[in-house]
Amino acid sequence: MNIRFYNVRLLTMANGVKVTEGELWVKGNRIAYVGDKNLEAAARESWDREIDGQGNVLMPGFKDAHTHSAMTFLRSYADDLPLLDWLHKQVFPMEDKLRPEHIAPLTKLAIMEYLTSGITANLDMYYFADEIARAAIETGFRTVIQGSVGGDASGAERLRQEYERLRNRHELVTYQLGFHAEYTASRELLEAVAALAEEYKKPVFTHNSESRSEVEQCVEKNGMTPTAYLDSLGIFNYGGTVFHCVHMTDEDLDICKKRGISIVTNPGSNTKLASGIARIHDMLKREINIGIGTDGPASNNCLDMFREMFLVTGLGKLRQDDASAIDANDVLYMATAGGARAMGLNDCDTLEEGKLADLVMIDLRQPNMQPLNNIAKNIVYSGSKQNVKLTMVNGKILYEDGRFYIGEEPEDIYAKANEIIKEFTK
Amino acid sequence: MNIRFYNVRLLTMANGVKVTEGELWVKGNRIAYVGDKNLEAAARESWDREIDGQGNVLMPGFKDAHTHSAMTFLRSYADDLPLLDWLHKQVFPMEDKLRPEHIAPLTKLAIMEYLTSGITANLDMYYFADEIARAAIETGFRTVIQGSVGGDASGAERLRQEYERLRNRHELVTYQLGFHAEYTASRELLEAVAALAEEYKKPVFTHNSESRSEVEQCVEKNGMTPTAYLDSLGIFNYGGTVFHCVHMTDEDLDICKKRGISIVTNPGSNTKLASGIARIHDMLKREINIGIGTDGPASNNCLDMFREMFLVTGLGKLRQDDASAIDANDVLYMATAGGARAMGLNDCDTLEEGKLADLVMIDLRQPNMQPLNNIAKNIVYSGSKQNVKLTMVNGKILYEDGRFYIGEEPEDIYAKANEIIKEFTK
Repeated sequence: MNIRFYNVRLLTMANGVKVTEGELWVKGNRIAYVGDKNLEAAARESWDREIDGQGNVLMPGFKDAHTHSAMTFLRSYADDLPLLDWLHKQVFPMEDKLRPEHIAPLTKLAIMEYLTSGITANLDMYYFADEIARAAIETGFRTVIQGSVGGDASGAERLRQEYERLRNRHELVTYQLGFHAEYTASRELLEAVAALAEEYKKPVFTHNSESRSEVEQCVEKNGMTPTAYLDSLGIFNYGGTVFHCVHMTDEDLDICKKRGISIVTNPGSNTKLASGIARIHDMLKREINIGIGTDGPASNNCLDMFREMFLVTGLGKLRQDDASAIDANDVLYMATAGGARAMGLNDCDTLEEGKLADLVMIDLRQPNMQPLNNIAKNIVYSGSKQNVKLTMVNGKILYEDGRFYIGEEPEDIYAKANEIIKEFTK
Repeated sequence: MNIRFYNVRLLTMANGVKVTEGELWVKGNRIAYVGDKNLEAAARESWDREIDGQGNVLMPGFKDAHTHSAMTFLRSYADDLPLLDWLHKQVFPMEDKLRPEHIAPLTKLAIMEYLTSGITANLDMYYFADEIARAAIETGFRTVIQGSVGGDASGAERLRQEYERLRNRHELVTYQLGFHAEYTASRELLEAVAALAEEYKKPVFTHNSESRSEVEQCVEKNGMTPTAYLDSLGIFNYGGTVFHCVHMTDEDLDICKKRGISIVTNPGSNTKLASGIARIHDMLKREINIGIGTDGPASNNCLDMFREMFLVTGLGKLRQDDASAIDANDVLYMATAGGARAMGLNDCDTLEEGKLADLVMIDLRQPNMQPLNNIAKNIVYSGSKQNVKLTMVNGKILYEDGRFYIGEEPEDIYAKANEIIKEFTK
């Protein structure tokens, strides 16, 4: 499909945060033109659709840089419990019931929600990775799947197989080496993962320093923080991306800087699970690349980049005791290009000629976006899902004006999710 | 208009947080029936409209219990600045330019946003109260206006006049005695306000203990915290409602309990301005009535009860270091019936026969509301403006499926707001 968006405001994220007026062309799955109004040239093209943007904003799709999509089945299933009760008495026993056939429908439910929030790609980490890939391919969503192995060293072989099987699975699917977390992996597994990273010359993705107790236990066991311990094993010799990072020492942050590790912050989940507030201010000062993730829908409970963006800046201001901390423009970068970089997606991070057409149209003709004093700050501070007019992934419109174009009826996906949780709780 | 909602889920908030199935009738501006499906009786009535709720939720409208609506003109005008620079260099000089004719259009812009968030009434505090009333009456929105005087004792006479003029202005408008804050009022004014409270036997509304410095300065000047100082002057002899209350001592909370004072929490604003996290847990323990407010759009920057609800529970969990703190069901009460009580609105707080028809329909057929493990918790933890299908105030539908029915075109209201800020900045 060749699609022309005209009469739009452009927030390309290619050269800082700047809003211009113009048009954008999509040919196939790529951006063919982005710039000033160009009526003459446009008239020479043949268009499947010409969309009058009515002055609304086109910007790169948000990147949800850490999530567990299929956990939709546990949304609002057991909230307001102490963390360990929630995890051990509610989440783990339910997850034990999951079979491969449950994953694609539950992931599709999450994908629908990503689309309503202008999210065009995620970094997904959950059981049955092939089924995550299936959900993305069938709906047309872009996903980066990462390994989530734990336990003894045998996990490394499963990780290698998954990597080989999925890394070139489809144009919408990529795969990254990874493991669940330091506290669920044996030293032997971690050494084997480091060897895989060395063999493939690839970065490694993992949960890191989410809770205080996790850090304390690692220090007690290994004499080092999780970040230092993993680094000492060579895990990050080719970089990596680490999630949560709520409880980081200066030395931990220095390691991230030195190794080129990206940090993905998950403020909604860290808030709801009372994990704490990440040191975003200190990460920015070190120029560490930062992405934003929703975490899974059992711990958040929603998949909404607008909520996350507000929390990144708001919690950062609270933490620093300074209303000027964590500028909204920095947050907008994290939610788009920063996240893309953290996920290893360097071809759909900004709106530029030749890049993949992963973009979103933000509806400014809503009361929460008016007046137009500062459009970028409106998006970060007052934006909401109601402002997502259109979400395009890989050149295809998957969501527009409240309707989904994902090859399946929403009601069928809702019904399946409700059936699964009913079956698990009967 | 007589309107029948059938095939709905009912979250009446009348007896705890409980979802049932049934129908609800509106006759004129009141709820005429709420309960089980009743086809026979419904057939005997004549309806202007019968709305198939398709299983969606009807609940009481949210109450925004502290805001400054007309500050819409400063939304995203000057963010990410240190608090005092923002206030003294940006906000105050711009507010000096406001004239009465600016207030109604700027307030209407806020009212539109309230409607998109399912808010059916607000407690508004700003300059030119008669123009706030006008905006509410012209759009059909319910507003409680409060006095916001400051300075010397002469303010008390203005307050009395405003009270006399506006307290019976219209069925949609009520008025409460109030002043801006302890730190902007002379002792003489506070004594005169206390005398008015005594004369009318009425509660008093004010900002209270929002920032640490405000509390410290009061202690230095008066040897007491703001709450204790105001109480010592007799301000709360007939109760009252106090906003923010971020920095409260145990004694302050005990005074609120003893005097029957409601506290309105403003977590979005307190976060963005780095003011701190209120002691909601300790307020709940004392059974102090709590409402939720967005504060004005210059400090938040949006008017969204879903964001505020998540923040009340999330920040409370962070503050207590406990994922089980501040149950979502308590938050839903604060956002509806608790807020209504704080605002002196006892006739539109729950869905019951005879109550005013101020209600909202929540769209469950959206991915963020699925599966239906716990509908009330879905609303608090994953709800967003996208889920507001219909907002009714005083028996009239003012917002439905993204369209406004407020006697004026949205584009005209946006244009006026943009003109005003343009005029002020040229």
